[in-house]
Amino acid sequence: MDFTEGQSASLTHKVTAADVEAFAKVTGDTNPVHLDEAYAADTRFGRRIAHGMLAVSYISAILGTKFPGPGTIYLSQSVSFLAPVYIGDEITATVTVSKYRAEKGVLTLLTECWNQSGVKVVDGQAVVLVTDVAAAQPTLQAQPVPARRPAPQADPTQADQTSESAA
Amino acid sequence: MDFTEGQSASLTHKVTAADVEAFAKVTGDTNPVHLDEAYAADTRFGRRIAHGMLAVSYISAILGTKFPGPGTIYLSQSVSFLAPVYIGDEITATVTVSKYRAEKGVLTLLTECWNQSGVKVVDGQAVVLVTDVAAAQPTLQAQPVPARRPAPQADPTQADQTSESAA
Repeated sequence: MDFTEGQSASLTHKVTAADVEAFAKVTGDTNPVHLDEAYAADTRFGRRIAHGMLAVSYISAILGTKFPGPGTIYLSQSVSFLAPVYIGDEITATVTVSKYRAEKGVLTLLTECWNQSGVKVVDGQAVVLVTDVAAAQPTLQAQPVPARRPAPQADPTQADQTSESAA
Repeated sequence: MDFTEGQSASLTHKVTAADVEAFAKVTGDTNPVHLDEAYAADTRFGRRIAHGMLAVSYISAILGTKFPGPGTIYLSQSVSFLAPVYIGDEITATVTVSKYRAEKGVLTLLTECWNQSGVKVVDGQAVVLVTDVAAAQPTLQAQPVPARRPAPQADPTQADQTSESAA
């Protein structure tokens, strides 16, 4: 299996109130800005927002189900939260290969989430191990993204990280 | 509201099969290593594991509900996945203040998750904005953790990050 800089995959999710409530229940993150409309109205956000980690989990979903897919081992993830995700937003998560170290089977990806207005809400980088990914993979093509995408950045990852969590 | 290096808070969650299935449903991360016992048996993990992002979400839950609590704004999070989280594990997430820039209201925290055997499964760092956190906060004390904790590391965060996602 081989990977090329610029390969990309995306998934779009509509964020529902039920999703946010389910995420709060399973994670224990019951911050009222996610669950209480009256509380949220008095915050800087003005209304209920989704958990940032819900959007980050959409990145994990691509890595674990679509590209590279099952067998992908998560080494690390960094994210910056750039803008709020509101209930009702349609979030497109995109992963884009920025570096592949074939001799180690380590793939570095730019990871981004955008809302339906083309506002980037999450930016970051994932590093995954792909040595357990089955050779059979669908052909991947560059995906359109809803707004400008910065150039991939230098990879600060240590080359010898080990990991044990599936993506 | 003031913060001091070394202040810490923890939460412990038992990871159930139902949690993993609910997390898969809400995030779309249906990687079979999380859901299919027969598939998982043939992987390096030997049995079903939880999503790494579920453990990371426990960190977010502390930040958003306990310390600093509601009003906390997530700027960024980095995580390394060090060991798998299995169904049935008891995961203790801990956040520890490593730096407070009072003039900006920006708090940097060491973020870690440990399993019931004292194995660290997630390591990382969060940066949050606390200017919207209410002044009234319970007194926080250093918490015991189940294994050795490394000294807080130097803070690589840019001082001028902006953010819009509640923790």
